[in-house]
Amino acid sequence: MKRRLLLVSNSTLHGGGYLGHCQEQIQEFFGEHVKRILFVPYALHDRDSYAKTAREKLRSLGYEVESIHETADPVEAVRRAQGIFIGGGNTFRLLKALYDHNLVPEIRKRVLQDGVPYMGSSAGTNVSTISINTTNDMPIVYPPTLAAMGLVPFNINPHYLDTDPGNKHMGETREQRIQQYHEEPDTPSVLGLREGSMLLVEGDRATLLGSTKARLFTRGKPATEHTPGSDLSFLLTDGV
Amino acid sequence: MKRRLLLVSNSTLHGGGYLGHCQEQIQEFFGEHVKRILFVPYALHDRDSYAKTAREKLRSLGYEVESIHETADPVEAVRRAQGIFIGGGNTFRLLKALYDHNLVPEIRKRVLQDGVPYMGSSAGTNVSTISINTTNDMPIVYPPTLAAMGLVPFNINPHYLDTDPGNKHMGETREQRIQQYHEEPDTPSVLGLREGSMLLVEGDRATLLGSTKARLFTRGKPATEHTPGSDLSFLLTDGV
Repeated sequence: MKRRLLLVSNSTLHGGGYLGHCQEQIQEFFGEHVKRILFVPYALHDRDSYAKTAREKLRSLGYEVESIHETADPVEAVRRAQGIFIGGGNTFRLLKALYDHNLVPEIRKRVLQDGVPYMGSSAGTNVSTISINTTNDMPIVYPPTLAAMGLVPFNINPHYLDTDPGNKHMGETREQRIQQYHEEPDTPSVLGLREGSMLLVEGDRATLLGSTKARLFTRGKPATEHTPGSDLSFLLTDGV
Repeated sequence: MKRRLLLVSNSTLHGGGYLGHCQEQIQEFFGEHVKRILFVPYALHDRDSYAKTAREKLRSLGYEVESIHETADPVEAVRRAQGIFIGGGNTFRLLKALYDHNLVPEIRKRVLQDGVPYMGSSAGTNVSTISINTTNDMPIVYPPTLAAMGLVPFNINPHYLDTDPGNKHMGETREQRIQQYHEEPDTPSVLGLREGSMLLVEGDRATLLGSTKARLFTRGKPATEHTPGSDLSFLLTDGV
């Protein structure tokens, strides 16, 4: 399988600029053969402004950006893409737009069959997994399904947040929310990517990158911690 | 309209017991004529344990509890209920169960036409409004729609949380999430109920109760703050 994915937890790390904390990994990932990246800004309302931000940053790293919302035919844009980057924002809005534009099967095909490199950040990471069941976002719109592109056979929780024992707010902690997901039958593993971390997938190999550990939740088992550099390829063995 | 609702932000306030912070309002609300309350535990996985918790607390306040999950016919249980209480947990799981058991039209009829008092807490408050578009919960299951019971013509965000300027986590703030909802067309007002606050609705009168202020978000307008005791009846004028 030619699959190549860079799944980033968060677009901006506290104190840094847009994509600043992962720019080396981005250059390593897209390399020198990719000249032009197709950007998908559907997760935010102001697509023009979002495309401008992404274009400026990626241009500084040596890539031209085509924003899918500026193309006449989004499916055709995916068909000729050298690389794809789906940015963060609201995951429900993003997934609904991907279905509205008939992009889910097309992106899946390009990434899994043609080996087009796919980068996702936050919501763009959520939609690359089995489903958006473990997004943190508010359900501001109703997508036709929570099933996503299934580029990997598990779920991710981006912006994973540790429980703060001093917090007086009584909403569920992130860990409790993921445990509630695993109370439902047949639910896949959930990789909690803390801000600063990202997952690199190359074929059947998955490696944790970045500056923070990740927390893995598997139904019926205790959660486990994984340090940057860890080989997480076992997560891919369920097949896609 | 006979409608009587007590919509509580949170079941437990930091440092207090289950429903401790709103027990006076509960007694005032259900009064002495209601002897038996129908409890709906669908938002949590362990319904037996949840019913036990609710039963113990409400019994201490003078009410017997029938838990809907112990009845042979949930719709029939709603038809003969003197009072209804839907507890918190996961809003997606709760709404899906209400639809699965065909309870949405029945509860709506009992509350709006027959004047059966309805209390909701957290997720139980979300499902009483127009939709669950402004829940904070993780979408662990996929309900057939996000439209809810529409006992009031606006939305509520329970456990409303102020932005903490010292926070280094880069996920959207609660206010940003609600603003993203209002970027979508034709979205209703959202009442952000901080923990400790609740809304009492009696016919066409709505009053904020509890110990904390509420923040009201209206599409295209600046957000406004409202102190306990405020008359919020204007929120009801859109009709149900």
